[in-house]
Amino acid sequence: MKTRAAIAWEAGKPLAIEEIDLAGPKAGEVLVRIVATGVCHTDAYTLSGKDPEGIFPAILGHEGGGVVEEVGAGVTTVQPGDHVIPLYVPECGECKFCKSGKTNLCQAVRSTQGKGLMPDSSTRFSKDGNSIYHYMGTSTFSEYTVVPEIALAKINPAAPLEKVCLLGCGITTGIGAVLNTAKVEAGATVVVFGLGGVGLSVVQGAVMAQAGRIVVVDINPDKFELATQLGATDCINPKDYDDPIQQVIIDLTDGGADYSFECVGNVELMRAALECCHKGWGESTIIGVAEGGKEISTRPFQLVTGRVWRGSAFGGVKGRSQLPDFVDRFLAGDIQIDPMITQTMALDEINTAFDLMHAGQSIRSVVLY
Amino acid sequence: MKTRAAIAWEAGKPLAIEEIDLAGPKAGEVLVRIVATGVCHTDAYTLSGKDPEGIFPAILGHEGGGVVEEVGAGVTTVQPGDHVIPLYVPECGECKFCKSGKTNLCQAVRSTQGKGLMPDSSTRFSKDGNSIYHYMGTSTFSEYTVVPEIALAKINPAAPLEKVCLLGCGITTGIGAVLNTAKVEAGATVVVFGLGGVGLSVVQGAVMAQAGRIVVVDINPDKFELATQLGATDCINPKDYDDPIQQVIIDLTDGGADYSFECVGNVELMRAALECCHKGWGESTIIGVAEGGKEISTRPFQLVTGRVWRGSAFGGVKGRSQLPDFVDRFLAGDIQIDPMITQTMALDEINTAFDLMHAGQSIRSVVLY
Repeated sequence: MKTRAAIAWEAGKPLAIEEIDLAGPKAGEVLVRIVATGVCHTDAYTLSGKDPEGIFPAILGHEGGGVVEEVGAGVTTVQPGDHVIPLYVPECGECKFCKSGKTNLCQAVRSTQGKGLMPDSSTRFSKDGNSIYHYMGTSTFSEYTVVPEIALAKINPAAPLEKVCLLGCGITTGIGAVLNTAKVEAGATVVVFGLGGVGLSVVQGAVMAQAGRIVVVDINPDKFELATQLGATDCINPKDYDDPIQQVIIDLTDGGADYSFECVGNVELMRAALECCHKGWGESTIIGVAEGGKEISTRPFQLVTGRVWRGSAFGGVKGRSQLPDFVDRFLAGDIQIDPMITQTMALDEINTAFDLMHAGQSIRSVVLY
Repeated sequence: MKTRAAIAWEAGKPLAIEEIDLAGPKAGEVLVRIVATGVCHTDAYTLSGKDPEGIFPAILGHEGGGVVEEVGAGVTTVQPGDHVIPLYVPECGECKFCKSGKTNLCQAVRSTQGKGLMPDSSTRFSKDGNSIYHYMGTSTFSEYTVVPEIALAKINPAAPLEKVCLLGCGITTGIGAVLNTAKVEAGATVVVFGLGGVGLSVVQGAVMAQAGRIVVVDINPDKFELATQLGATDCINPKDYDDPIQQVIIDLTDGGADYSFECVGNVELMRAALECCHKGWGESTIIGVAEGGKEISTRPFQLVTGRVWRGSAFGGVKGRSQLPDFVDRFLAGDIQIDPMITQTMALDEINTAFDLMHAGQSIRSVVLY
């Protein structure tokens, strides 16, 4: 079949909106019509060429919401008409990781997904007979896409796909990091570094966890209004202080954060996020994705005196078994998505979304097909 | 009163066995007759001059077992004749840390203890009218010492002090890191870096936790016999491999350690200990004390993909409420101390203990008064 898609032909160039070929779903695969997709900084990172694992040409996009159109042989858990969110972290339920009860990082299709391929090591996208690679196993910058059955969360059809598509990455990542990874308890002091879509979602998660104090840190004070509206209690601009930001926070919070979250991808901030934690028990969770080759550092004394350093991917959320519940919590009013959407646009305008991100004027653009 | 003590007059010099003056216990303090003391690498580290917090002249020593001789005003929890282990991590039960339920790092006397002083900012030790500093709040290299009441664990008098003195530091540190800090579960794969007294005690703790596999790593294969006797299942000498030790362990353990412990104080090993952990859930605990100024590093991706980095001090054990139970577990045969004692000596020979440690021929020397 044919599908209209935004193609990343090479790094650093705008996406090209073209009609390409899409092969139907093979065994264990599903054809999904994408209704809407968010544009995330991770897409921009890969498109920029800085992502050492970036492969071109590819169909980017990983925050989609869609409808099942056709299922391949052996597919039993979804059927045509089901509303779904594609998962860049799948959930096979069978691998050592899925069975561990300790992680959401299913490894069933990890090696092929990382190479831009479907599990059988081929691509479904092509143009003029030449393969176009998949991206994060989702490739939602295409009106139609093919994904493995294990990479689809079946969700409540009452949920508007043009909103809950954002639960496919940033919002779930932030809320899940609070609830699943850090397991913030009521009354805790939470510190959030960076107020993009993920950081704002950490604020939401902290509110859901009934945190006692939610301190947000960003060098752009324009972001403080929305953060406060979502539940932040203290807004800190590091530029307003001479002391290192970790010391500012320790002073502000009577000893430091019970839980901190780094939502930027800056290794110096990751250090600050750890070191602003309370001696004896403070736990810092890294969510941001750092550039390849960058390393985090601290004195080991920081850990020996009780701080804990951890990380979170997709908020520790198991997509098929837990993401439907996030959708229901949105429908129940517990999770806010509307404030995170800064603009919507048609696929033809998708490059505008990247321009807005680069200019710092976007939390999330949503592309409507 | 007078007491015989081993005095560290200055860094890098042998201890001098001399008679010095000891003032009696003030309010909230206790005079203890030390019956036996272990000699720990931390004493050697401070004596070497490398410890940036080292203060001289001082009475070192922090692995003591003794008997209460006299109590100061207001002391209610111990009385003359009680058998006690001095605690370099006290437990006041009143401070924010003690009340948190999340840490053993009582801060009640932290600032004075770090300066070599009693809580009233003076010293009890002196010679010819000149103050001699306390060390870690314990100063067990003296036949008599004065410590705060909150820094004494009252233990079962049936326990031989010349053995359980080692529960005052190394053995408890290792076992506690497994049981209290990492909370190793039955069946887990545990990897231990360094087979000194702490590392061997981690092996013991892993056995107590019913770990499924206990891999020990040391560059001195002479230590493997005792480790195996205590319960190690696999002994690895990094010198036998060309690959980085983290890769060797990942290959050996089908993906990595569920829990690893660094018991050396080497920041490169700390990195290896983290990176040998299993993706998705492996947790690494730093126990070793690194030299001042040294930093740990890794790629943040190690944490984002599910590994956890933490640390442990005195095994996360609250001294007054939990250490007596360690003594009882020794008496019940669950904790082995005898294999950890490589030699005993009189106070006059204490410098031999440091020589043996430097030569790598000692796990623990015990000094008998």
